[in-house]
Amino acid sequence: MPRSLPTPARLEALSDGVIAVILTIMVLELKVPHADGLAGLVTILPTLAIYLLSFAFTGVYWVNHSHLVDRLEHVDHLVLWANLSFLFLLSLLPFFTEYVGDKHLNGLSVQIYAGSLLLVSFGFQFLSAAILRHLCRDGRTEGEAEKNDHVWEIRKGWFSAVFYLVAAAVAHWHPRSALLLVAVVTLIWIVPNFGQRQPETERPRDA
Amino acid sequence: MPRSLPTPARLEALSDGVIAVILTIMVLELKVPHADGLAGLVTILPTLAIYLLSFAFTGVYWVNHSHLVDRLEHVDHLVLWANLSFLFLLSLLPFFTEYVGDKHLNGLSVQIYAGSLLLVSFGFQFLSAAILRHLCRDGRTEGEAEKNDHVWEIRKGWFSAVFYLVAAAVAHWHPRSALLLVAVVTLIWIVPNFGQRQPETERPRDA
Amino acid sequence: MPRSLPTPARLEALSDGVIAVILTIMVLELKVPHADGLAGLVTILPTLAIYLLSFAFTGVYWVNHSHLVDRLEHVDHLVLWANLSFLFLLSLLPFFTEYVGDKHLNGLSVQIYAGSLLLVSFGFQFLSAAILRHLCRDGRTEGEAEKNDHVWEIRKGWFSAVFYLVAAAVAHWHPRSALLLVAVVTLIWIVPNFGQRQPETERPRDA
Amino acid sequence: MPRSLPTPARLEALSDGVIAVILTIMVLELKVPHADGLAGLVTILPTLAIYLLSFAFTGVYWVNHSHLVDRLEHVDHLVLWANLSFLFLLSLLPFFTEYVGDKHLNGLSVQIYAGSLLLVSFGFQFLSAAILRHLCRDGRTEGEAEKNDHVWEIRKGWFSAVFYLVAAAVAHWHPRSALLLVAVVTLIWIVPNFGQRQPETERPRDA
Repeated sequence: MPRSLPTPARLEALSDGVIAVILTIMVLELKVPHADGLAGLVTILPTLAIYLLSFAFTGVYWVNHSHLVDRLEHVDHLVLWANLSFLFLLSLLPFFTEYVGDKHLNGLSVQIYAGSLLLVSFGFQFLSAAILRHLCRDGRTEGEAEKNDHVWEIRKGWFSAVFYLVAAAVAHWHPRSALLLVAVVTLIWIVPNFGQRQPETERPRDA
Repeated sequence: MPRSLPTPARLEALSDGVIAVILTIMVLELKVPHADGLAGLVTILPTLAIYLLSFAFTGVYWVNHSHLVDRLEHVDHLVLWANLSFLFLLSLLPFFTEYVGDKHLNGLSVQIYAGSLLLVSFGFQFLSAAILRHLCRDGRTEGEAEKNDHVWEIRKGWFSAVFYLVAAAVAHWHPRSALLLVAVVTLIWIVPNFGQRQPETERPRDA
Repeated sequence: MPRSLPTPARLEALSDGVIAVILTIMVLELKVPHADGLAGLVTILPTLAIYLLSFAFTGVYWVNHSHLVDRLEHVDHLVLWANLSFLFLLSLLPFFTEYVGDKHLNGLSVQIYAGSLLLVSFGFQFLSAAILRHLCRDGRTEGEAEKNDHVWEIRKGWFSAVFYLVAAAVAHWHPRSALLLVAVVTLIWIVPNFGQRQPETERPRDA
Repeated sequence: MPRSLPTPARLEALSDGVIAVILTIMVLELKVPHADGLAGLVTILPTLAIYLLSFAFTGVYWVNHSHLVDRLEHVDHLVLWANLSFLFLLSLLPFFTEYVGDKHLNGLSVQIYAGSLLLVSFGFQFLSAAILRHLCRDGRTEGEAEKNDHVWEIRKGWFSAVFYLVAAAVAHWHPRSALLLVAVVTLIWIVPNFGQRQPETERPRDA
């Protein structure tokens, strides 16, 4: 039974590998401060905050990615390369995280950082569209709930993109407020789900 | 059968990936000494000892993590983010390991190091609580043995936390004794299990 | 049921791990420019372009590798070591990517870079031959479609090799054209498949 | 069905992750030479040769490790920690590889390098013994062929250990011959298997 393309399982394995490495290599950017004592440690706090933000952002996209890819039974070339494009854009994040730390959170660096988050979100929208195209071609129809879910996700994606743009603008005058805005957008992806009831399909034991 | 969240398998895969990278990037901090000969190598011995300690500590948490996550059949948002928080705190360990080495094991650096171990143990307790909440909501009741196991683990967790605090205090006067204390706590997690008989469920062939 | 060699699944897992790390560590080579502002960022654009090229190249070989290894039901020693040789050659890519960036895309550095791509493509041809030998010894006969596929792949491989050689020659006079040529060869591996209809075996639902 | 320890599958996943990272981070040690042109590249050839040696050595242990762990149906604490010890010793290899390169293959550095290979081989023997103990306790008896295999492996292990010791001694007078000896021992693990017929259990289609 020859298959000409990687299975969704192997696509997931590679993506998980790349994301795991991205999450952990960012810490290599935290450089031990030359100054001894607490004074030295205080100087790395802004970098640490940025690192936490990038970690949470990557975590959000890992969750979203997993949600998307889980629907696939096969993979086509466009999905494959949309996925690699997304991973490429995400793999630039450690660089931009280091950049904004090295430039001491100045206006331009925060603008560039917000721009890189925007690029990742575009990469994700592209992957999402490629997967939608594949599912349609594959003759799979989504259920009503699934469709609403998908529409809701796409809206959330554009909503985030707009906020990253606003953050890039705000960074010109007040870089730290811009980062705060980015953090709030990230929390909006994370927090509201905590109270959420799980969908039926996730609780087979209750059925 | 759409699922809106990563499966436990994918959560494990990401966690294993992150932990594997953490374990191996710490070695990048071992810098080749400028001094030639054995004299040069002797200067890296303290760093090597700290690296070994961090490796063993991460190993202990990998075993504990695997024990916790193995019980899950599904994942909810809180578990997901408790897991990512735990991984974040653990991913700071290579930085603090490098910090304590660079600062030549001085008092403050060992205090900070013990503090980072404490943070990881808090992150783990949080993950443990999130998983307990999930299992209860999922309507799963734990068996008597499993409950005892869980209680025993939580106690062991608090017990370690207290010792990391004591170590942080001791480090003020005698940093190396504090590290020894941390090493002893780590060994307490590892060694007593070697003689332990395996639970029935692990030896299906004897049944 | 003892098996004396890693299963294809474990070979895939190791390969995916190595490729995931290769994809992400290349970004560590992007060094934050000393110059502030956009001027600084412009200086890293050539390096970023090379990084993108290496990422796409590695992506192509990941897809091809996955295609090859998917056919295996067992692994023999030659396949195992051909695979490790391929991974070794591929793992040199981040170094040569850094090299060409550090040397500001001068003629020799681009020649060396094209040479390293050539080596990877030889490594892949060797792996492909080892797998073919294994399938024959295993008594598995390939179907007509599979054979055509295989022949077509081998031709595409030699075709790429020739172009990498041409690129190495061209680099002597015009390094940037040589890189463009390499980029075009990489795109030839990627783009023409986007419109392609999936093979029957990939669309069981249509059957 | 609670299990109190990681499954063999998760132990394999972590080990594969660690080994994949080890294989690829070694290349980070290859530093781009300051000298331009071929002269610069020639200076890194010895480091490249050492890197290839370490890569092949790690590859041999990956194959051996996979052979060992494949026999497990469960894991006990000693196996778990013997495995982590083995991974720890193996994760030191990139450091010692960098060390021998930085010290320009001088006598002492090659002795230290041979010593680190010796440590890895001891770590492997320890893991092998722990797994043997576990299989006995588990009530599993090995077949005749499996036993011979095991005995043969242990002998090969001691044989290599002796050669690493000899290499460490030879390095005092002639470091490059010592490295050649190490390379020969590594090839002895790899090459003689190429012609080998596969065991019956590997060729179910011929049965």
